[in-house]
Amino acid sequence: MSQTPKVHVTELVLRDGHQCHIATRMRTEDMLPICSKLDAIGFWSLEAWGGATFDACVRYLKEDPWERLQKLRKALPNSRIQMLLRGQNLLGYRHYSDDVVQAFVQKSADNGVDVFRVFDALNDTRNLEVSIQAVKKAGKHAEGTISYTTSPVHDVAHFVGIAQELEAMGSDTIAIKDMAGLLTPQATVDLVKALRANVNLPIHIHSHSTSGLASMNLLRALENGAVMIDTCSAAFSEGASHPTTESMIAALQGTEFDTGLDIAAVQEVTAYFREVRKKYWQFESEFSGVDTRVLLNQVPGGMISNLSNQLKEQGALDRMDAVLAEIPLVRKDLGYIPLVTPTSQIVGTQAVLNVMTGQRYKSITNEVKNYFLGQYGKAPSAVNAEVKKLAIGDAEPITCRPADLLTPEMAKLTSESERFAQSEEDVLTFAMFPDIGKTFLQERIAGSLQPEPLLDKAAVNASASRFAPSEF
Amino acid sequence: MSQTPKVHVTELVLRDGHQCHIATRMRTEDMLPICSKLDAIGFWSLEAWGGATFDACVRYLKEDPWERLQKLRKALPNSRIQMLLRGQNLLGYRHYSDDVVQAFVQKSADNGVDVFRVFDALNDTRNLEVSIQAVKKAGKHAEGTISYTTSPVHDVAHFVGIAQELEAMGSDTIAIKDMAGLLTPQATVDLVKALRANVNLPIHIHSHSTSGLASMNLLRALENGAVMIDTCSAAFSEGASHPTTESMIAALQGTEFDTGLDIAAVQEVTAYFREVRKKYWQFESEFSGVDTRVLLNQVPGGMISNLSNQLKEQGALDRMDAVLAEIPLVRKDLGYIPLVTPTSQIVGTQAVLNVMTGQRYKSITNEVKNYFLGQYGKAPSAVNAEVKKLAIGDAEPITCRPADLLTPEMAKLTSESERFAQSEEDVLTFAMFPDIGKTFLQERIAGSLQPEPLLDKAAVNASASRFAPSEF
Ligand SMILES: [Co+2]
Ligand SMILES: [Co+2]
Repeated sequence: MSQTPKVHVTELVLRDGHQCHIATRMRTEDMLPICSKLDAIGFWSLEAWGGATFDACVRYLKEDPWERLQKLRKALPNSRIQMLLRGQNLLGYRHYSDDVVQAFVQKSADNGVDVFRVFDALNDTRNLEVSIQAVKKAGKHAEGTISYTTSPVHDVAHFVGIAQELEAMGSDTIAIKDMAGLLTPQATVDLVKALRANVNLPIHIHSHSTSGLASMNLLRALENGAVMIDTCSAAFSEGASHPTTESMIAALQGTEFDTGLDIAAVQEVTAYFREVRKKYWQFESEFSGVDTRVLLNQVPGGMISNLSNQLKEQGALDRMDAVLAEIPLVRKDLGYIPLVTPTSQIVGTQAVLNVMTGQRYKSITNEVKNYFLGQYGKAPSAVNAEVKKLAIGDAEPITCRPADLLTPEMAKLTSESERFAQSEEDVLTFAMFPDIGKTFLQERIAGSLQPEPLLDKAAVNASASRFAPSEF
Repeated sequence: MSQTPKVHVTELVLRDGHQCHIATRMRTEDMLPICSKLDAIGFWSLEAWGGATFDACVRYLKEDPWERLQKLRKALPNSRIQMLLRGQNLLGYRHYSDDVVQAFVQKSADNGVDVFRVFDALNDTRNLEVSIQAVKKAGKHAEGTISYTTSPVHDVAHFVGIAQELEAMGSDTIAIKDMAGLLTPQATVDLVKALRANVNLPIHIHSHSTSGLASMNLLRALENGAVMIDTCSAAFSEGASHPTTESMIAALQGTEFDTGLDIAAVQEVTAYFREVRKKYWQFESEFSGVDTRVLLNQVPGGMISNLSNQLKEQGALDRMDAVLAEIPLVRKDLGYIPLVTPTSQIVGTQAVLNVMTGQRYKSITNEVKNYFLGQYGKAPSAVNAEVKKLAIGDAEPITCRPADLLTPEMAKLTSESERFAQSEEDVLTFAMFPDIGKTFLQERIAGSLQPEPLLDKAAVNASASRFAPSEF
């Protein structure tokens, strides 16, 4: 590790990288063997937990996500472990009462998380306040996050306002989370400059390579005063994922933005993960390259693969383009919300319905109804009154912070889960996923956990080539 | 097309893009349907001929490359067609006499080439002079080219010297050909600045994305005075290929480097080629992502896939890393030649031999012997005297331009091919490839041309899934 890196790097391969390219399926057993090498490189942090990994562990891998965290903590003694947290949603899909948020953050810190990147899909900072306070109370690093998007209402002033609120709440750093790859180099210049002028915190940039712009964005961000960048080992970089770690090290080497990191050391990590990735080939998305359609439809890479699976199940993959065209319209009806978990699912599912039923809003999901009822927080701008009427009639939306309406839940969750939860961590797992979490915990007790199987590519290819035309 | 683009874009999808990703296998029939859209976009030029396409047409596709050019010319009435020409090697693998070079350039111009990018693998500008003169005589655009590489001898002054010679020879523009993705943003700044200060020609940058740096390189090149960039439709971009056209348009839009091009129009081209690409899935390389090992071993992307095939045939794919480690050593022995056709093959094959025989230079190829004899031109710097001795003993290398030793050949080639060549173009095809060119021309007369078949992926997958484990 260099003595004086001028730019700090967060390595994403243990979380966002495999979330983007193999649907979050990497197993802990495939992470641990390389951890000592990762640990020695000198990254500012390793994003390794949160986001969709908690869900994937419980749902598909039948791994205890808390155990993963403990194992990673032990295997990465010299590194900051970073997690992605969805504010008042934590890692679940609803708003939790403040006591659940506080318990979740505390347990995450206890088990090994050092840096909490906390965001809200609507950029409603009221949804971030309790978790940021909990992070600070746990003595950890709180990274308040701007969910970046583009719309007539999302101008630089709008984002500066959010960043100032995040600063006032006690954030240690500010992250620009460009989950869809919508940032352009020029927009990065404008945004980072304005943030630097109005906020006194280090700026950390996270930009997906979906549209092929992210590496240029990182360069521009650094030139304009950002000091932290997110990158991913070449084994899981680019496309829906992120600029390549080795490439950014090389790009910045010998300049005023030198990362101080050793390319060869990262190449070893990459060589390891290239082999690992092959094991998960069945989860590779068809849509993994650069796709600039995102610049028009604002659909994040991960969302595209979800939609693709959703449509495939309905035998309607050919409606993909129609759905991609519908998404920005739904988004506009909903007041131009950013598309990120859970709003990407909300908008995506409604867009699929609008296309598949042949009539927009003929069928409206409960999530959209709840959104119009204010249950997710404050819309970034005025919603479509007609659609709102279709969705909730004359019902009166709430205007307070959604969690203000929730009474403490930990006691109730604890008693509801007492037959299968063996720790507070288990209670929180149950809290995140009442159904699959409960099943997971019960099966663990019964010793009947069965991870989703991995298909053997060699076997498939062998049977394939036996049936290939004989001229090959 | 915009009225006043500030930056000129060359689209590579018809040549370098498919050369990098599907081993140059795209057929003319897959190019023509989209030509009217490509033609309307307003690219400065469309690279569509030369490089490995001539060889691939004759060897694999059983297409007449001259006919391809004629068809493209007709289908692209408003566009400059650009070709890549290997100087005195033309599109073959030896040095040709000047009359062959002159005839080849003239026929290329007659059949539709507007822009000739002319390079020499050794940067021996004596090997470029005759072709550049021929281009100018034909009234076409001559782009003199620097083959970029890194080595102790390849500093900025070295490249400036080459560029000045290319300018003196009558080049209209200067191309920086970073075929291996070795340029870094900082190296780009240094090189472009120096070229601008010492050469009075527009600078055109061509950088492969192999190491994940090319889009940043293009940005830096423009900032420092380059005015022409090479990009590729997203369908065949990134990795061993090039920055994505749509992404660069978006990155530059609204800045002082605006390309004036319409992203949506390019997206249509991309949508078309994404479908086309599927047809050629059997030619996709395993090594198509970002690979920064090139920054240490200087091996161009295309060379990696060739080596991979070579080793696969010998059942020795596991020696790939050893070969990649051997390449820079061979290159050093040969006076740090750039690695590009044909030197990449020369160095690659010798490196494979050095690894597979278990003893360096136990076996030495004729090409390496000829190289030491000066038959390719002047080495960039001193060669390894010991290896030279092993290769050629006490033989005296030539010091003149290799083609100076060749007498005119066209008459002889014409008479040798009179039974199967029906035009001067055919004679030139025969000149490029005495064996496969002759066979091609004979089979064409016999009506027995058989293009290499394409494997049907759906059929393969269907048989595969029938044999997949039943839980899937
Ligand atoms: Co992300
Ligand atoms: Co090239």
